[in-house]
Amino acid sequence: MYLPAHSEETDPEAIADLIATFPLATIVAQTDDGLIANPVPLLRVSDELLVGHVAKANPMHEVMRDGQAVMAIFNGADSYISPNWYPSKAIDHSQVPTWNYETVQMHGTIAFQHDEKAKRAVVGRLTKAFEGRTNGARAWKMSDAPADYMASNLAGIVAFEISVTRVLAKSKFGQNKAIDDFANVTREMEARDQPRLAQRMADKFDGLSEG
Amino acid sequence: MYLPAHSEETDPEAIADLIATFPLATIVAQTDDGLIANPVPLLRVSDELLVGHVAKANPMHEVMRDGQAVMAIFNGADSYISPNWYPSKAIDHSQVPTWNYETVQMHGTIAFQHDEKAKRAVVGRLTKAFEGRTNGARAWKMSDAPADYMASNLAGIVAFEISVTRVLAKSKFGQNKAIDDFANVTREMEARDQPRLAQRMADKFDGLSEG
Repeated sequence: MYLPAHSEETDPEAIADLIATFPLATIVAQTDDGLIANPVPLLRVSDELLVGHVAKANPMHEVMRDGQAVMAIFNGADSYISPNWYPSKAIDHSQVPTWNYETVQMHGTIAFQHDEKAKRAVVGRLTKAFEGRTNGARAWKMSDAPADYMASNLAGIVAFEISVTRVLAKSKFGQNKAIDDFANVTREMEARDQPRLAQRMADKFDGLSEG
Repeated sequence: MYLPAHSEETDPEAIADLIATFPLATIVAQTDDGLIANPVPLLRVSDELLVGHVAKANPMHEVMRDGQAVMAIFNGADSYISPNWYPSKAIDHSQVPTWNYETVQMHGTIAFQHDEKAKRAVVGRLTKAFEGRTNGARAWKMSDAPADYMASNLAGIVAFEISVTRVLAKSKFGQNKAIDDFANVTREMEARDQPRLAQRMADKFDGLSEG
């Protein structure tokens, strides 16, 4: 990914937050059949480890071998940015359209897990993370379902781990723009129902002001 | 992509709408340097043609050759789906968590354009589409900017076309669920600030009811 210094995201907390907030990754690989991509919710267990699972009927675990190079792409908020939103445009008209966005690309290798114990552990981790944030004290638990039903469901999936070897992260918010232009686009994001981008840009603005 | 019949999206209008609503694609390719991916806004000119541009400083146009196989991934709305949201869960507890999402993957070949006329045409198309929907009658036009400024900007980009050879589209909304379960998850999407998913599911519900 093209990664100019002003839009490279180097804050580990920002990277972890994007993955936790937008966990539906797209897992991409080059296979004998060409490029394939599958949307899969992933949990970041550590800086170096992502876990998830797919349906056993998903050929992904058959066309990829253990150790296969994959990329997991996590996309956050994004918005078209109009030149009209830069105060400086009214002065010299020297602005063009662009796009603001945030993305994390994790390169690594995948390894599949077929034993029930490993699959139960992965499902348990994902359930705890996603149900916990969604339903709090009323969170669904695996033990709420009949044992034979859960066993049948676990038999129908394949778990996997991605060992992360390289992370590329980009927060392209116009950090190379003049402060007044950056600040007004931040306000436009707030006004245009883009609270996530507005907050992320406001966080960056503190850094720009100090810099 | 794993594409069970019940979640395969075959409606050309739904596919075109997703691309128009979420135009920031991720363009993926296998290169001599391994997998690379770049977020790039794309315009769908026809069923078989996507156009866009990248910064000349983006090595994408150097590590990809003309005719290179690429995939353009367009992701729409997505949401975690809790088992608690299925009315049938209260009866037999036989539900597990899942994820609803919509995605379009376009496979094709890329060709880059370096001449100013082609670049100006692509920028004009994208500007008309994205500015038009954003600012209507007040839309910014290329002619608003000084000629030398636009020429300098055009010199700093490379345009490209993707000739689409294969489309995989998935609207995974739980179309394999019981009608009452599907209907209640639709209501949860509405209540949980997911109007796009609620609307897309409601559109599918009409089909399920008739089916």
